[in-house]
Amino acid sequence: MKFCMYCGGPLERAIPAGDDRLRHICPNCGIVHYQNPKIIAGCIPVWQDRVLLCRRAIEPRLGYWTLPAGFMELGETLAEAARREAREEADIEVELESLYTLFSLPHISQLYAFFRARMVSEHCAAGPESLEARLFLEEEIPWDELSFATVHRSLRLFFQDRRNGSFVFRLEDLGPDARRLRGEDGAA
Amino acid sequence: MKFCMYCGGPLERAIPAGDDRLRHICPNCGIVHYQNPKIIAGCIPVWQDRVLLCRRAIEPRLGYWTLPAGFMELGETLAEAARREAREEADIEVELESLYTLFSLPHISQLYAFFRARMVSEHCAAGPESLEARLFLEEEIPWDELSFATVHRSLRLFFQDRRNGSFVFRLEDLGPDARRLRGEDGAA
Repeated sequence: MKFCMYCGGPLERAIPAGDDRLRHICPNCGIVHYQNPKIIAGCIPVWQDRVLLCRRAIEPRLGYWTLPAGFMELGETLAEAARREAREEADIEVELESLYTLFSLPHISQLYAFFRARMVSEHCAAGPESLEARLFLEEEIPWDELSFATVHRSLRLFFQDRRNGSFVFRLEDLGPDARRLRGEDGAA
Repeated sequence: MKFCMYCGGPLERAIPAGDDRLRHICPNCGIVHYQNPKIIAGCIPVWQDRVLLCRRAIEPRLGYWTLPAGFMELGETLAEAARREAREEADIEVELESLYTLFSLPHISQLYAFFRARMVSEHCAAGPESLEARLFLEEEIPWDELSFATVHRSLRLFFQDRRNGSFVFRLEDLGPDARRLRGEDGAA
């Protein structure tokens, strides 16, 4: 960030009065340009005993399998964002059940939210950002070809909770090494 | 938003290829300047049978009572943000218990998260953004002088759940008329 989005003038880096962090400040406007974490909303779409995954047609992680999810937009609720992403990426309509996982990823300043969701029909199809969309039984999940630690972890928890007969909301922090440490073994 | 933060050139409003929303685009850089909802993290700090509130020293809602909360920063987890805000606004150290409420406020593009929290001591003091910080019994809560619908709703739920002996995580949407519709009567 180099220029003020309001006046186009060059920005400076300084700690504003009463603050304790370096911010981008416009000496012309006096405006502080804050930067904030982003929210990604998605869901675990379920049809009978199968879970829907999409294969990514875009970077990052092109070609890897993912749960439908994406950046929350201005003017949306978290649930609306999750439903919209399911529609866009897999052409599915879902009824959201409870919020299931919420992950802080401080190394990339993201907050990831996944709902459990019931597909209203078996229909699914790849949207513009997907190469494929299809339903998987637990034993078919391509664990080594999943896109992100948040997806890996949510699916591990989902199948574990399903076996136990009760789904429990989880708030967790995932660092850059989360997949190795907490994903592969499926342990809580 | 009028100018590109990377090159300082004037922005245009257009729908990027493959998108369905108007975005701010820099014709010079080709960069799309997305805007996203912001996350506010806070807590309900409890000492024995009392809850801590701060009286706001800043706009909006200057002079009104609030729970310690504020914008999540880059590089933080949700829990770190909630603990930092408690420290900054009320000079308290808290041990976070579970995430308690999560509100979408689509009309202002915010996502609000409150944890339940145990204060590690009775000490509290007004930080730079507070006029006062003090502990309240339920019957002392200044319901008509609370800052925001999210605070009002979280406190109503907290006391209701405390009477029932069990705290339940809530995900809710709050619109601009939330306080009138859902706050004052204390009903779920």
